[in-house]
Amino acid sequence: MRIIGIDPGVAIVGYGVLDQIGNRLKVVDYGSIQTQARTAKAMRLKQIYDAATQLFSENRPEVVAIEKLFFNRNVTTAFDVAQARGVVMLAAEEAGASITEYTPMEVKMAVVGYGGAKKRQVQEMVKTLLSLAEIPKPDDVADALGVAICQAHSTTFTDRLKARGWQR
Amino acid sequence: MRIIGIDPGVAIVGYGVLDQIGNRLKVVDYGSIQTQARTAKAMRLKQIYDAATQLFSENRPEVVAIEKLFFNRNVTTAFDVAQARGVVMLAAEEAGASITEYTPMEVKMAVVGYGGAKKRQVQEMVKTLLSLAEIPKPDDVADALGVAICQAHSTTFTDRLKARGWQR
Repeated sequence: MRIIGIDPGVAIVGYGVLDQIGNRLKVVDYGSIQTQARTAKAMRLKQIYDAATQLFSENRPEVVAIEKLFFNRNVTTAFDVAQARGVVMLAAEEAGASITEYTPMEVKMAVVGYGGAKKRQVQEMVKTLLSLAEIPKPDDVADALGVAICQAHSTTFTDRLKARGWQR
Repeated sequence: MRIIGIDPGVAIVGYGVLDQIGNRLKVVDYGSIQTQARTAKAMRLKQIYDAATQLFSENRPEVVAIEKLFFNRNVTTAFDVAQARGVVMLAAEEAGASITEYTPMEVKMAVVGYGGAKKRQVQEMVKTLLSLAEIPKPDDVADALGVAICQAHSTTFTDRLKARGWQR
């Protein structure tokens, strides 16, 4: 099962592409979509949408997992991120992927096992779980891989329940 | 100059299409894009995007004026509206329109002349200014026409300054 994790943003959208084969996770690709502050807002949305459409078309994910926004002190910034998140969801829907959403706390729980984990702890665990030589940069990329891992663990968990005859 | 005003939302996106000819405003069309609560979130975004793309392709606006979001008590709802606003902005950008944004207060100032005006006052003025037989329903449609009027007044004002040799 191919999973793409997304950490949404306006300047930087992090993404991580994983293949889940049984209990194993294989890193296919990771990186970021970046837009410039001097570019008009609507054009930045179009750049993000076009790049996300290309990413999904090249990688054909079965699931796109997108981090949920949490309430930020800067509401205007949060609205801008939500707009960018909207065009990424649109691209995922058009690509025919299943779309899931996880809160930052759910991602921390899945990756570190503790919802109050620090950013650095999440990044170290992402590196370890995926056998990477170093923590991917910028932070948004490591975060996106964390979201993809969260999705993989949640799928595994659901599958285990199903295998035991449980319905979610 | 053709203007489309947009009142963004998830369940209802209001729109109003006006032609500004000198000091006159001619109503071309108005209505709403609606999505169902039982439809998955990403599919609703796609429905809004597809309908907005069709609206802009049929009406070829020079300007799309979109109401800005203000901080709402329900942050989750506001994020959902921002996501929907993002896909409408994307559609407007793809249609090659200029995109402008106005706060609810700016719209009230332009339509009623008073930033603290009540919703009902704005709707009555929209009806009067556009010589409509009744207030368009639902509220989102009247609001969208208000945003379009706000854009028209702002253009007129800028043009007057330019005609007098002023630069904005």
